[in-house]
Amino acid sequence: MSFGAVALPGIPEVRAGDDLAALLLAAGIELAATDVLCVAHKVVSKAEGRVRSLVDVVPGPRALELAATGDRDPRHVQAVLDEADEVVRATAGVLICRTRHGFVCANAGVDRSNTEPDCVVLLPENPDGSARALRAALGCAVVITDSFGRAWRMGQAEVAIGVAGLEVLDDWRGRHDGGGRELAATHIAVADQAASAADLARRKDSAEPAVRLRGLERFVLDHDGPGAAALVRARGLDLFR
Amino acid sequence: MSFGAVALPGIPEVRAGDDLAALLLAAGIELAATDVLCVAHKVVSKAEGRVRSLVDVVPGPRALELAATGDRDPRHVQAVLDEADEVVRATAGVLICRTRHGFVCANAGVDRSNTEPDCVVLLPENPDGSARALRAALGCAVVITDSFGRAWRMGQAEVAIGVAGLEVLDDWRGRHDGGGRELAATHIAVADQAASAADLARRKDSAEPAVRLRGLERFVLDHDGPGAAALVRARGLDLFR
Repeated sequence: MSFGAVALPGIPEVRAGDDLAALLLAAGIELAATDVLCVAHKVVSKAEGRVRSLVDVVPGPRALELAATGDRDPRHVQAVLDEADEVVRATAGVLICRTRHGFVCANAGVDRSNTEPDCVVLLPENPDGSARALRAALGCAVVITDSFGRAWRMGQAEVAIGVAGLEVLDDWRGRHDGGGRELAATHIAVADQAASAADLARRKDSAEPAVRLRGLERFVLDHDGPGAAALVRARGLDLFR
Repeated sequence: MSFGAVALPGIPEVRAGDDLAALLLAAGIELAATDVLCVAHKVVSKAEGRVRSLVDVVPGPRALELAATGDRDPRHVQAVLDEADEVVRATAGVLICRTRHGFVCANAGVDRSNTEPDCVVLLPENPDGSARALRAALGCAVVITDSFGRAWRMGQAEVAIGVAGLEVLDDWRGRHDGGGRELAATHIAVADQAASAADLARRKDSAEPAVRLRGLERFVLDHDGPGAAALVRARGLDLFR
């Protein structure tokens, strides 16, 4: 088997209210129904107006306290707390939060890079919904991605935070290896692996927010599917908080 | 930018003492110096004789106790403990361990699937060393991979456990986005993303343990590099034990 990854040519700076699907289509790369388009969440968030000016943020007591421990901007910390359901770990260097979507990541996904000065970009309100809207407009599977750190490994890897039209978990339970023995790895996180693959095809500092993966049709669905919500480990199954 | 992933045609069942590099070369796919070959650890472990018969394993008291809580084979649990530096979490369903290499994964990487009955496959003794030997023989970058679960996300993703000739962490500290602002994601886990990308190009039940990635030459080194050891979060930086 094989597949290919190609970054779409740069698209213009995205602003609130922009028709992102139209901007992506205008990049002039063919998108077939069996393709998977991975899109960095930042352009999705910007198009949806999920950008917040820190000038308007008044930090509360908890934000001031957390900011003091880590030499952080208290307004940024308040913006993080506003997006977080729970602060999982807070140290001088890092604020790991569970977002309202259930994702566990640094700063609840609130990011100061690649945006205007004194502004932060938030995660989309409903990334699976955003992916479904893009899929309807583009006619291919869509994965909205972000870079997350990992509990025990150095570095960030790109993961799926919104998915439409792609199997997110390939379920191998009950299936068997060549020797007839049940396989140990029972659920392959296909959508996360697609996000990571796409990230290898673009540079972080380029205006290349989207990458087309071609050759993964065995994972492409004829409907939206469960979305990235299926990748969230339920609190009862979460051994690391 | 773009890259392509292609699975090598199946190779014969690997046995202890086999020359794995020769078997991979015999698959007849061209490997250039700028290619990255991702190899599932299982064939590496088998070639290195890292297979253990459970018939010879005598479970100790701790293995018997842990096995009783999870309806597990106490001999398998003993084999896991023999590979583990630390049991990070033990529940009825899962035994998450830190291996002697520092990797945190289920069952310390000791796996019963894809092997003889009553045998387990262990991780390579020194996966970075195994990768370096393969690189020397194949003349391309090499990533040895395994499927690991994640703390807060459902499903397994393929990660790098041994690396030679590939940048494992792309360091963006101090580099800036298009607007001149420092980037938030400072270290991209390139080798893990390569492992995940490769996994999308093969089926778990096929005899396709190796996938060639072509187009990642900007991450390929002219020397072995730091290896997957650089991906291990040091205990002092590990917030989740």
